[in-house]
Amino acid sequence: MKRKIYLEMHTLEEAREKWHRAVGDRRTAVEEMPVHEALGRVLAEPVTAKVSVPHYHGAAMDGYAVKASETFGAAAVRPKHLTVGVQAFPVDTGDPMPPGTDAVIMIEHVHSVDAQTIEIRSAAFPWQHVRKVGEDIVAGELLLPQQHRLRPADLGALLASGVSAVSVYARPRVWIQPTGTELVPADQAAQAAPGQIVEFNGTVIAAMVQQEGGIATLHPGVEDDAATLRARMKEAAVSDADVIVFNAGSSAGSEDYTASLVQDLGTLLVHGVTMMPGKPVLLGLVEGKPFIGLPGYPVSAIMAFEQFVRPLLAWLQGLAEPKWTTVEAVMGRKMPSKLGLEEFLRVIVGRVRHRLVAMPLQRGAGVITSLVRADGLVRIPQESEGINEGESVRVRLLRAEEDLDHTLIMIGSHDNTVDVLASELKKADPRLHLSSSNVGSLGGLLAVRRGQAHCAGAHLLDTETGDYNRSYVERYLHGTPVRLVQLVRRRQGLVLAPGNPKGIRGVEDLYRPDVRFVNRQAGSGTRILLDYELAKIGRTPEGIHGYDWEEYTHMAVAVNVLSGSADCGMAIYAAAKALGLDFVPVCEERYDLVIPEECWEDPKIRRLLEVIVSERFRRRVTSLGGYDPAQSGTIVGLWDGAAWKETIG
Amino acid sequence: MKRKIYLEMHTLEEAREKWHRAVGDRRTAVEEMPVHEALGRVLAEPVTAKVSVPHYHGAAMDGYAVKASETFGAAAVRPKHLTVGVQAFPVDTGDPMPPGTDAVIMIEHVHSVDAQTIEIRSAAFPWQHVRKVGEDIVAGELLLPQQHRLRPADLGALLASGVSAVSVYARPRVWIQPTGTELVPADQAAQAAPGQIVEFNGTVIAAMVQQEGGIATLHPGVEDDAATLRARMKEAAVSDADVIVFNAGSSAGSEDYTASLVQDLGTLLVHGVTMMPGKPVLLGLVEGKPFIGLPGYPVSAIMAFEQFVRPLLAWLQGLAEPKWTTVEAVMGRKMPSKLGLEEFLRVIVGRVRHRLVAMPLQRGAGVITSLVRADGLVRIPQESEGINEGESVRVRLLRAEEDLDHTLIMIGSHDNTVDVLASELKKADPRLHLSSSNVGSLGGLLAVRRGQAHCAGAHLLDTETGDYNRSYVERYLHGTPVRLVQLVRRRQGLVLAPGNPKGIRGVEDLYRPDVRFVNRQAGSGTRILLDYELAKIGRTPEGIHGYDWEEYTHMAVAVNVLSGSADCGMAIYAAAKALGLDFVPVCEERYDLVIPEECWEDPKIRRLLEVIVSERFRRRVTSLGGYDPAQSGTIVGLWDGAAWKETIG
Repeated sequence: MKRKIYLEMHTLEEAREKWHRAVGDRRTAVEEMPVHEALGRVLAEPVTAKVSVPHYHGAAMDGYAVKASETFGAAAVRPKHLTVGVQAFPVDTGDPMPPGTDAVIMIEHVHSVDAQTIEIRSAAFPWQHVRKVGEDIVAGELLLPQQHRLRPADLGALLASGVSAVSVYARPRVWIQPTGTELVPADQAAQAAPGQIVEFNGTVIAAMVQQEGGIATLHPGVEDDAATLRARMKEAAVSDADVIVFNAGSSAGSEDYTASLVQDLGTLLVHGVTMMPGKPVLLGLVEGKPFIGLPGYPVSAIMAFEQFVRPLLAWLQGLAEPKWTTVEAVMGRKMPSKLGLEEFLRVIVGRVRHRLVAMPLQRGAGVITSLVRADGLVRIPQESEGINEGESVRVRLLRAEEDLDHTLIMIGSHDNTVDVLASELKKADPRLHLSSSNVGSLGGLLAVRRGQAHCAGAHLLDTETGDYNRSYVERYLHGTPVRLVQLVRRRQGLVLAPGNPKGIRGVEDLYRPDVRFVNRQAGSGTRILLDYELAKIGRTPEGIHGYDWEEYTHMAVAVNVLSGSADCGMAIYAAAKALGLDFVPVCEERYDLVIPEECWEDPKIRRLLEVIVSERFRRRVTSLGGYDPAQSGTIVGLWDGAAWKETIG
Repeated sequence: MKRKIYLEMHTLEEAREKWHRAVGDRRTAVEEMPVHEALGRVLAEPVTAKVSVPHYHGAAMDGYAVKASETFGAAAVRPKHLTVGVQAFPVDTGDPMPPGTDAVIMIEHVHSVDAQTIEIRSAAFPWQHVRKVGEDIVAGELLLPQQHRLRPADLGALLASGVSAVSVYARPRVWIQPTGTELVPADQAAQAAPGQIVEFNGTVIAAMVQQEGGIATLHPGVEDDAATLRARMKEAAVSDADVIVFNAGSSAGSEDYTASLVQDLGTLLVHGVTMMPGKPVLLGLVEGKPFIGLPGYPVSAIMAFEQFVRPLLAWLQGLAEPKWTTVEAVMGRKMPSKLGLEEFLRVIVGRVRHRLVAMPLQRGAGVITSLVRADGLVRIPQESEGINEGESVRVRLLRAEEDLDHTLIMIGSHDNTVDVLASELKKADPRLHLSSSNVGSLGGLLAVRRGQAHCAGAHLLDTETGDYNRSYVERYLHGTPVRLVQLVRRRQGLVLAPGNPKGIRGVEDLYRPDVRFVNRQAGSGTRILLDYELAKIGRTPEGIHGYDWEEYTHMAVAVNVLSGSADCGMAIYAAAKALGLDFVPVCEERYDLVIPEECWEDPKIRRLLEVIVSERFRRRVTSLGGYDPAQSGTIVGLWDGAAWKETIG
């Protein structure tokens, strides 16, 4: 088996520079375009006005056109009469000035004496309320410079000055070629066999091309076979495409022929960039045409597109590379990163008490949903070993900046009702957006203490009192006033393969040698609950196979049971139901929202509480199974930072 | 003649509120859309995943798939051998895990012993480098909430999870109806007779609709005739359009039938808003459908569109009204404004020495080029009487924010070579953008003193020494070090109607009773030059007809001569040549750029100076006529704020 290693990795900066030197001066063909179709297009040459605007002397007001000199002497104490049709002519705004007239008197300043006579009480000065020829645009004047991108008002100015067609750079044409023997078309996703990859990258790349003003042609995927790839590459090179994008086949995997083909048919400029995600990107020229090999992992493909294809599409249209919108935020969690690798972290961003907080999401390059959920990207430079909690970072936004003010940051324990909350909140107010980060109940309390969340989800059992959350608030939130609001009561239990093949009936069966367990992370409410249940039967965790295997959500636990990686895990009933798994109830518990007093009057929290007490929310939560929303929205604790006050409601 | 007055004017805020109450809850029809065509569309319902992603256990690295338990015990000092094809299976990233395996060892950590054997030096843990079923997305999970606008990565997540079609709100359809007896189609602009208006507003409105995600149908203009308008309005109401926009016919002019027709066919909500431009806007419902009458003046139409049509298009798609990008800037000139009227000022914005400066442009609602040239809009609230010079204002941007860093602000005297500079600068670097504001030479010096310009254009004659600019710099720029750079030498003279019908031969003829003169504003270099020339023949301005009539640019002077408003004016030769007018030379003068020392190293100024000494610039300037660029780019003065230093170059 032949294994290829990247010959010479480039830093991101080097690779971008090399790319700009090689293709930065290219432009697409110039085409003539009717003005009314030219919105967003870029002028290939300066445009000068063909006719003056206005092209005649016209009334700028509704009223009467007069010869100014004939009005001289008129005053409030000495009104003057003018004969309509002889000395004064009714005009509307835009009407041409009748011959011999040079001023307009506004209708409001005229008194009608009779059908033939008007009276004025002040004189007009020459050219008063008259729009003169060329006042706006003079024929021959430079209207718009070269390389200007046309906006709606520009189209108006062009048409007004007699320009009905313009020379613009053609929209860059991009040939998108998915490659890979394992690809199946997206519409067959439901039938994909193990090892088959649903081809969706091509659609994502085509959409990004469209967003940058290009025209994408998405070709059907082809097999990873040297002869086929060579033929496609040559076909693309002689086509009308300005840019060739191959997707996948650019990793160091054994089926990678792209690099040697590019070397063979043209010039290989860059293969491998010290960025993550996006490392296996490939840049070159194929028979003189810009060629980009994008990595196969979706997030890698998107990141590499943004660094190399996006600027190229701008250059081809005569534009500078558009900048991203960025904001300053405080990192809500420590994120270590590898030295020598430029990393792009996906983050959730929200404004908590007047400052923006960024919370990192999953890192995997294959996790397309991390980009869907993210509000922004944080770049960790290659000379950095990571970002500390509380450190200030620049975030490149993936949403409109104003959306961040409408982002409610919830950190803490995961529960399926949080998805319902997110959906219902958006329905109640389309601007609102709930971003949740699952770090366990205790992690949520600490985020509240640090001022990094609008609320936390927690279900921390006090094993001594049997109550929830209160003793933990006392211990961890000294000096931070909060309110506890019950979100739901929910059933926790053991999630089992369908039909319960191993016949597991309770926590006592976890000690059986044939049972593989999957646990939740330390600090999670579910873990504490499990330990409590074990203690109730007088046991310690010792002897449970898989007790050290930690997952971060109920769904992740259930997925491990579904896939057969584990026989059993502890999770909420809704997770088992969602995946069609069996469930043995262990107990019912309370899940609360911990809301800092400082956020209590925040309109987003107000809306959230309205949703929680709504009939719709209760109905949807009930249908998930295993939930009791009867007391949802009740305030179950009022903590002033030092003691509990009498509970309201 | 019937005259209509607005019955009841609304403030902008009242009108927007009333509009929102009347139409804010409407949505377009819901339509099913293939995912690959759904970029930018808004989900009409939440989307849940149909299949899990990944849908099988797959290798997350290139290497060998193994059963983890069989690797236990391997260590650097105690390597372990595995048989290929029995205990270890070569896999590439994405390959399904062979049956019985549960971990991947990276290719880099494997030593090949022979064709059948590999050696490992550390143990693998279960599920190491394996992407498990549902790790990214679990079937049944909420993928995207309702009212989410689809971005490229979202399309990927949808396809990956088996969703190939989505329910989205239809793009709102907008019926655009230009009205007015005087309209001629835009492609006949060159043949338009006096009083005819080139119909370009429709194209501008259609482009704005397109920008906001709608589909515009621009109908041919119709006559201002009650029966015709009524028929069109009814036709629009029963069409598939979601919104009806009539353009013009909404002013208080005599030909305005729109308001009464709306009242007749539906509900008239608002007629007249205390905003400028945009006052005559009309809002209503016609047979239940949202109807907007936009004013006829282009800037008014655009402003009213932004306030009323743009939010409506967002609501119809289930979106919040998108916010504008705004920045904080310092006003560079005093702008008084009427109390009780919300005014939108068009401004040029640039970054001068670390702060943004806004300079107002022409105010006329008919001046479409004011929107073309503007970088932004400043809103003067109705309770304000205006903005003082130096006051801080919020500017809504009409360009990308990063463009402002590339905007070179030039304030001062107008010269036609400045247009050439703007065009050449853009050619040299597409990011650069020269914004010029014409306030006369002296106004330019004062702007430099206040730190509000990167450079000023000046041609101020010292009538005692015959030199240019130096004595004015001494007088006005004490404490402000600057450099004087010669831009051009140019010919000034008298601009005359073609054929010089009045036989004007020099400034002495300006005193003739049959000669109407048009002058430049006080403080302008040309005005000073005229006075100097008059003094040379021993005369004062007294007795010149039109000496008090002031225009702000050479072209404005020439236009007045072209249109017959004046017989003669003083201007540069290039202005006469551009309009085909006659010209009697009076003298040659120097036109300098005054560049503050603090801006001297600004990359924009560097680029500007490179352009000025380029062969292309000289060639183009020469072809304008009346210019001598031989010394262009020479430093003619080095002022340290108190004294002249020895001149370089």
